[in-house]
Amino acid sequence: MDKSSMPKAFATCHHWYSSILDSTTKSTNRVKSSPKHVHTYDHAFHGFSASLSEEELLLLKNSPGFLRAHIDGPVEPDTTHTYKFLSLNTASGIWPASQYGKDVIIGVVDSGIWPESPSFGEDGMTAIPAKWRGTCEVGQDFNSSMCNKKLIGARFFNQGVMAASPGTTISMNSTRDTFGHGTHVASIAAGNYVEDVSYFGYAPGTARGVAPRARLAAYKVLWDEGSYESDALAGIDQAVADGVDVLSISLSYRTIDLYENPIAIAAFGAMEKGIVVSVSAGNRGPNFGTVLEGIPWAVVVASGTVDRWFAGTLTLGDGQTITGWTMFPARATVRNLPLVYNKTLSACNSTELLADAPSAIIICVNSFDSPEFSDQIGYVSTSNALAAIFISEETRILRSTSFPYPGVVITPKQGKGVIKYAKNSSAQPTASIKFQQTILGTEPRPAPAVSASSSRGPSRSYPGILKPDIMAPGVLILAAYNPDTSVTNIGSNIGLSSDYNLESGTSMACPHISGVAALLKAAHPEWGPAAIRSAMMTTASTLDNTGKPIKDMGNDYKGATPLDMGAGQVDPNRALDPGLIYDATPQDYVNLVCALNYTREQTRTIIRSNYNCSNPSLDLNYPAFVALYDPLEEVSTKTRRFRRTVTNVGDGAATYKVSVKRPKDSVITVSPEKLVFQKKNQKLSFSLTISYKTYRDYVINHGSIIWAEEKGKHTVRSPIVVTPAEPSG
Amino acid sequence: MDKSSMPKAFATCHHWYSSILDSTTKSTNRVKSSPKHVHTYDHAFHGFSASLSEEELLLLKNSPGFLRAHIDGPVEPDTTHTYKFLSLNTASGIWPASQYGKDVIIGVVDSGIWPESPSFGEDGMTAIPAKWRGTCEVGQDFNSSMCNKKLIGARFFNQGVMAASPGTTISMNSTRDTFGHGTHVASIAAGNYVEDVSYFGYAPGTARGVAPRARLAAYKVLWDEGSYESDALAGIDQAVADGVDVLSISLSYRTIDLYENPIAIAAFGAMEKGIVVSVSAGNRGPNFGTVLEGIPWAVVVASGTVDRWFAGTLTLGDGQTITGWTMFPARATVRNLPLVYNKTLSACNSTELLADAPSAIIICVNSFDSPEFSDQIGYVSTSNALAAIFISEETRILRSTSFPYPGVVITPKQGKGVIKYAKNSSAQPTASIKFQQTILGTEPRPAPAVSASSSRGPSRSYPGILKPDIMAPGVLILAAYNPDTSVTNIGSNIGLSSDYNLESGTSMACPHISGVAALLKAAHPEWGPAAIRSAMMTTASTLDNTGKPIKDMGNDYKGATPLDMGAGQVDPNRALDPGLIYDATPQDYVNLVCALNYTREQTRTIIRSNYNCSNPSLDLNYPAFVALYDPLEEVSTKTRRFRRTVTNVGDGAATYKVSVKRPKDSVITVSPEKLVFQKKNQKLSFSLTISYKTYRDYVINHGSIIWAEEKGKHTVRSPIVVTPAEPSG
Repeated sequence: MDKSSMPKAFATCHHWYSSILDSTTKSTNRVKSSPKHVHTYDHAFHGFSASLSEEELLLLKNSPGFLRAHIDGPVEPDTTHTYKFLSLNTASGIWPASQYGKDVIIGVVDSGIWPESPSFGEDGMTAIPAKWRGTCEVGQDFNSSMCNKKLIGARFFNQGVMAASPGTTISMNSTRDTFGHGTHVASIAAGNYVEDVSYFGYAPGTARGVAPRARLAAYKVLWDEGSYESDALAGIDQAVADGVDVLSISLSYRTIDLYENPIAIAAFGAMEKGIVVSVSAGNRGPNFGTVLEGIPWAVVVASGTVDRWFAGTLTLGDGQTITGWTMFPARATVRNLPLVYNKTLSACNSTELLADAPSAIIICVNSFDSPEFSDQIGYVSTSNALAAIFISEETRILRSTSFPYPGVVITPKQGKGVIKYAKNSSAQPTASIKFQQTILGTEPRPAPAVSASSSRGPSRSYPGILKPDIMAPGVLILAAYNPDTSVTNIGSNIGLSSDYNLESGTSMACPHISGVAALLKAAHPEWGPAAIRSAMMTTASTLDNTGKPIKDMGNDYKGATPLDMGAGQVDPNRALDPGLIYDATPQDYVNLVCALNYTREQTRTIIRSNYNCSNPSLDLNYPAFVALYDPLEEVSTKTRRFRRTVTNVGDGAATYKVSVKRPKDSVITVSPEKLVFQKKNQKLSFSLTISYKTYRDYVINHGSIIWAEEKGKHTVRSPIVVTPAEPSG
Repeated sequence: MDKSSMPKAFATCHHWYSSILDSTTKSTNRVKSSPKHVHTYDHAFHGFSASLSEEELLLLKNSPGFLRAHIDGPVEPDTTHTYKFLSLNTASGIWPASQYGKDVIIGVVDSGIWPESPSFGEDGMTAIPAKWRGTCEVGQDFNSSMCNKKLIGARFFNQGVMAASPGTTISMNSTRDTFGHGTHVASIAAGNYVEDVSYFGYAPGTARGVAPRARLAAYKVLWDEGSYESDALAGIDQAVADGVDVLSISLSYRTIDLYENPIAIAAFGAMEKGIVVSVSAGNRGPNFGTVLEGIPWAVVVASGTVDRWFAGTLTLGDGQTITGWTMFPARATVRNLPLVYNKTLSACNSTELLADAPSAIIICVNSFDSPEFSDQIGYVSTSNALAAIFISEETRILRSTSFPYPGVVITPKQGKGVIKYAKNSSAQPTASIKFQQTILGTEPRPAPAVSASSSRGPSRSYPGILKPDIMAPGVLILAAYNPDTSVTNIGSNIGLSSDYNLESGTSMACPHISGVAALLKAAHPEWGPAAIRSAMMTTASTLDNTGKPIKDMGNDYKGATPLDMGAGQVDPNRALDPGLIYDATPQDYVNLVCALNYTREQTRTIIRSNYNCSNPSLDLNYPAFVALYDPLEEVSTKTRRFRRTVTNVGDGAATYKVSVKRPKDSVITVSPEKLVFQKKNQKLSFSLTISYKTYRDYVINHGSIIWAEEKGKHTVRSPIVVTPAEPSG
């Protein structure tokens, strides 16, 4: 709704909306008892949700102030050594500088929270900041005393679910998380310190969020009975009203234009109020153009691997030792047991076949005509075999925590030696397997690498702005969970639960960035959302832990591009002191939206009536450069000119000189090539012109420009991408 | 051997024995290469073990100095909240008074030790006492650096095994414990503090031994390849030589007279050197006369229950909550699953029957015509059922840690309500089970109670001295274990291992007493073994944690007698300050042995040549009174007079007055009835005369006398038992 059209007679929007809805009801003789008004939104966004007939909708559309109506749609949901992997430490850098995120409030819009998790204990937390306007909403199995100085707010929103399915009983009608996802995500961002946690013995250690002293407020919008945009929107709207500093949204929604995307619209309102909005890129990778959440005013987060591997040590009777993958969730005793290789049996592809399995360790080979490891282990778990060695490509199982029977997965190369020993050993061949091993470092693969499932750019919302923005850890992240739900199985059908769970996806990467944003907000309270995002992006790393360019798991471990990982892997300590900032004001985003060829109504749905469209511009002051082409056109050479303004956030006078790493088949000109700042907070502008070749194929070339401080430590990097705008087909 | 007969020409016994053996070999033309001399014993006992032919043995028997030969026989082995149950605390009492057993050395003769267990870490331990003469013997997977300030000695003895089975390969030829029993026992006695341990989530907490600052020396005499008295004897002999203060022997051996029992003989030597010898009573209960280890000069330990219960909470769909027994070794997710009662299925007695089990929680009823719970759960674990409720008498399973499938055992009384709900519920019946619960207190049974399997008196060695002497916790004790061995199963055939294991038996009770003895030795270095035992016995408790007399699990929870639990449950804090002591010197034990109608050789086998038999007496100065009768004789009234001397170990002058609780059908006279001590360490004597009825049946009557300090806190209790001497049949 266009709030500027509200008649002065109404005290609040809610009264106005109710009046409009009442008049539509009267006109259509609607049965009074049926539910109608769902939510009123007034903080991130102006409008309401309601259950309406076609006829009522038509009447509504003719009401004064009406902008757009959108049919409610489903929302889907898309862990803690990662602090170390991100080099967070107590001795120096952003943790001490930010006081660990003290007094910054992160709103988590998700499936709620498990308030009793020790990750949400208030040990070491100071009094709740006075600015907080949220509450601890009472509901089923959730009373107001369940909030504390860590978990400072809890609210739930399911009027959308109820409107979509009238008569539904909500099985847990409160902010309590019956799923685990919301609990997991919240504890990644700002969980307190909890000693001696693990996932069934794997990843043992002290859990802690990225911002262990930040506050959490949970907004439950995902329900066992269904999840709707109207509820998600209500959660975001309330979080903005409550006074959060950072919004962490690990949700996926339908592919839609920005004016059709209620969360993008709400995020605009949050951004206006200075709130950093961190959203997950989605898990629809690895294909080109799979990022749906391409919101220009949010931080869109890709998922990368962690330098951690869960292993089992296989020791053969002849002393050979092989490290393989296992996540068997207990300390099985597999010691000096007979080892049997039988070619027929090794397909491990049916209960009947395995009925004859010996009481021994058997060898299962994963080939083209045998089922996947996950099926093989299912068959083995109903057999008489005591354990199994699975010979398979590790990439297939890297993310799976399901491992119900004792065993270990090894590579075909490792498997050759094992089979040879099992076949040729003169004595009775035997083997032992040690479980619950956690290995850190560069083996078996360097980290981070872009997760195969992480959604890739360019953004369908508007491909001209790089999305995703940045990458954070999102593979097998240990964090708090709903302790009452099954997280894995043991044996043929025994479900097991755990206070801490290993989960993967951009859902887990997003709260890492929410946590870093909280740390940056605490250290630099004067920075707005664009400045915080710029600091993260221009300092991100493009190298893995072997010092080589970050690889892409979804593209056979070839080099990752900015469409996979944005500016790169977040580096929180460097983001604390970025040197220069590419800032953007709400008006800058308005200028972008105004340039997107939307109708007046589409535009005002996003920017509302506070702004005008007198300066439309696609050239947002963004710390990345995207040059687009259309593979359907003739091959040519195109030229695009970008203009950028950087703010000196270093300590005082500084001179920066540009260096360019040009994308293949491109020529880059930057002017001026030197920026001489006289003082802190001074702004200087430059232009970047790219002259680039286009292709009849989906060729992506990328490079970067770096502003390097002369006689100083700051380097400010921005990726440059030459890419087709739209996915094929 | 009679060492006094050794010719002066021999420098050591070893030379003498070798010479004797050489001469027998020469005489019999034995093949030189065959093993012969096994061990020489010279500390606890004089003699040797050797592999001899019949002919060689005959020759040996004619050698000067020969006393007795004994055919080597097999030895069998018989678990930390118990410190709390025993009221040990850091604020007052024996822990601070003894500095937690500082510098007292406990020798554990058992299956060796797992040196890497954190229970044997040296955190907080001071330098090793100068008196220590032991060593850290190097062996397979065991180097000398594996000992430390906690584990100060490690030795192993398997010559007896090798002699019994020449050519045997010892699979772990070192003090390393491949079993777990020795590790468990040692950590009960003197394990260091280890945080956050549990048995698969049960009994969680900080583990610690009874004497956390005492030292440990491990003597491995139990082997995977067999266990022999000759090796056990060698271990005890070496421990005495090394300078241990307390010997902890949780072993069982054959039923034999004292002169036939090498460990009784070795314990005599240890006692002579002031070493407290604590031995397990054995696990042959609950029948009368099952104590085999009735060594008058040792402390023989019975096993009692602990005020701890491992539970699962069963919650029915209608809200009923039932607490049952479970030890399922993982956190199974059994939440709101369908509950099915089917009478046929409920026998849970075959794989075929259970093949049709629904994917639900099923109910198994344990009745006369169905198998035991342990069999039922085996059948259920191969079925499709998701969990099971077992209706059974709890006593059958109280000690079992085997619980491979998710479920809970409830009583027939509790089961009635569950079946009623499952049959009559109008809606779909459902249930949930919560695992890994540890309950402390008086439910479901008061504690301690005498364990059913604990061996009972009277002692077959000599029934006139009360055995067992005392009771200590021995049921489901959590302590360190061999981490490489399977301690329980999950599913149909997955073995699981654990750093800490729950074990039951007098083997676990014994090291509790070894630990208390170490505390007493540290607090009262001047006390000998008899004084330490007397202090424990006269202060022991005969009441459970509800204030009622301790019950006997082996006799339908009726009252326990001194033949079941000796003087009662050890109370370490009271033992610190017993008031009076019934002391005994080596000569007192000699006088007893001399009165046992043994031949000269039998007698000298025990007492050797250092003593004479001029004062034989069955009336050992023991803190208990046993009046015997023979049920085969005519019923009559018998009279027995005991004479006792008590030493005032209180602070100074004190007056004690006797009070008597007479056994049924007995009259007790004590003279004098008042003992007036002028000073500390004064000794005063009294006589106790019992006039008692005999029976033609196995009737056991018991009572006590208590010397109570006038205007003082000390009460000194001794049990009185009227019992048949020998088991029937």
